Amino acid sequence: MPDIKDVAKLANVSIATVSRAFNNKPDVSEKTKKKIFDIAKQIGYEPSIPARTLTKRKTNILGLIVPDISNPYYGEVVRGIEDTCHIYSYNVILCNADNRREKEFQYIDILKNRWVDGIIFHSDYFLKEHFEAFKSKNIPVVLAGRATELDTAYVAIDNFKAAYDAVNYLISLGHERIGIIHGPLDGMKETVDSVARLMGYRKALEEAGLNVYDELHMEADFKAKGAFLAAKKMLEGRIKPTAIFAISDMMAMGAINAIYDSGLRCPEDISVMGFDNIDLCEVTRPALTTIAQPMYEIGAIAARMLIKMIENRETGSIQPKKIILDHKLMIRDSCSRIKN
Amino acid sequence: MPDIKDVAKLANVSIATVSRAFNNKPDVSEKTKKKIFDIAKQIGYEPSIPARTLTKRKTNILGLIVPDISNPYYGEVVRGIEDTCHIYSYNVILCNADNRREKEFQYIDILKNRWVDGIIFHSDYFLKEHFEAFKSKNIPVVLAGRATELDTAYVAIDNFKAAYDAVNYLISLGHERIGIIHGPLDGMKETVDSVARLMGYRKALEEAGLNVYDELHMEADFKAKGAFLAAKKMLEGRIKPTAIFAISDMMAMGAINAIYDSGLRCPEDISVMGFDNIDLCEVTRPALTTIAQPMYEIGAIAARMLIKMIENRETGSIQPKKIILDHKLMIRDSCSRIKN
Repeated sequence: MPDIKDVAKLANVSIATVSRAFNNKPDVSEKTKKKIFDIAKQIGYEPSIPARTLTKRKTNILGLIVPDISNPYYGEVVRGIEDTCHIYSYNVILCNADNRREKEFQYIDILKNRWVDGIIFHSDYFLKEHFEAFKSKNIPVVLAGRATELDTAYVAIDNFKAAYDAVNYLISLGHERIGIIHGPLDGMKETVDSVARLMGYRKALEEAGLNVYDELHMEADFKAKGAFLAAKKMLEGRIKPTAIFAISDMMAMGAINAIYDSGLRCPEDISVMGFDNIDLCEVTRPALTTIAQPMYEIGAIAARMLIKMIENRETGSIQPKKIILDHKLMIRDSCSRIKN
Repeated sequence: MPDIKDVAKLANVSIATVSRAFNNKPDVSEKTKKKIFDIAKQIGYEPSIPARTLTKRKTNILGLIVPDISNPYYGEVVRGIEDTCHIYSYNVILCNADNRREKEFQYIDILKNRWVDGIIFHSDYFLKEHFEAFKSKNIPVVLAGRATELDTAYVAIDNFKAAYDAVNYLISLGHERIGIIHGPLDGMKETVDSVARLMGYRKALEEAGLNVYDELHMEADFKAKGAFLAAKKMLEGRIKPTAIFAISDMMAMGAINAIYDSGLRCPEDISVMGFDNIDLCEVTRPALTTIAQPMYEIGAIAARMLIKMIENRETGSIQPKKIILDHKLMIRDSCSRIKN
């Protein structure tokens, strides 16, 4: 590999001059600069990224904090992020924080110490503490998949409206006893997706003049197994649902298994509606009717937005952008019209 | 944030002395060092990682090249890698190369320019060109999920034996016409998983004295949809299989759908065996009988091995280690005894 000494020798200048030329310092003539760059290009010399980092304080690295990359939803989002970063010559450092606050804050510190240019943050929560942490450290941040009232950029869908649409579809099929399997509610903070989706569900029922049964509200952990247990409990309860709305596809799949294991069928006996539209929805039988989140786009747009924020940073302050993408009802085979 | 100037001022030494102390240069007395470190600790000063990087040429970053993080198999492997790195205070830069050579080599260059301490490489192929690229750049590398005859460390399972065991299980259930859906064979290079698994399949059939039908060999792309089409073609062929061995779970799920869409049932009419044991296998109906690869462990052990290689590097050359982990037959509901 050619190094800075080779360039200096061939250009007949000092190593310091080559370094100053590459760092765009004023005291090198344009003529000398051109000579240095031409030679560097000819012999394939590029100043090392860590060395450039120190002078420019720019790493072209984004930090990426997600709960768990082994969950297929995050696989799609992260793929969108990394593809976009690759186009813009950025790399991503991946961190799994499991929605645990102390791990999230630890990663924010680590990423700050690594001088990442910005962070894409995806967590089930975005709280005041998170906002303050990013602000005090002066790190540009974009939330992926999560809206906030706080002064922070995000790319998300309208979770309230999406759940409202999902439940209205079930109502349009004649269902009246519709259960919900939601995620942790964390004291009903509005920043939490589960709460927005639960509110959308309740609103649809109330508008249709249907009963909202507490017995048909179950909490699980966004995993198939947890939802399986929650659905079992719901099916054994006093009020029998004719449809279940699970606020993630993995939970919907757990619910379907609980239905089969209870000797019932989906959708003939109980309809199931999911949320996310992961690849699996087409693969399972019955294929899952669900609300599609544009996962890849959420990641890709969050990355592009963050890179623009970073690259425009010196040109003046920018208002954080808030982008809501469209969701879509994907009708497949797991929901059917109620039989009277 | 306290900086190096604060430490120098409080310790009553020059900035250069603080820097030399932190970089463990010989010309600072132990007494002065102790004073500097004590003050640094008191005021919470740590030299920035990029600055330390330049003096130590060590970044504590591992590069990670996988085909596609949106595939659930890689999600599990990468989770194992990142968890382990976190324990050892390393971070990972994630790259998706789609099994495309030019993208793999581009990422190897990028990671080299970023001075990563080592690379975990997971691709459907590990060819002489890859080996030469890592060697010429002098980057420690560990292959995840992939064995090689070349002088390179790896963590994998025995793909030949795993496929052999899978097919022997089907034979033990009385199946005689067993189809296979494999991945791209790339000119039958032995470095390719698909080939090892195909060989294991053929060996089991041959040992049992069963016919090996060319019509029952189908190639797909490791995705559910591709396998769906391949299975459709197989089911419409002259030789009707009673069982299909798909060499990935996602492909097995595609095959099951093709069976249903052809008006047949799984396992009553046709058994299906998968490979990988992704989370989904328990969630779909029928639950998928498959060969379990220890995905998380492959990632975790590859990361630990690479970190050990990096940290022992200066103590002398080490032989690359080759680790084969156990696979396991997971019997669920998608394979049944043949009815006569």
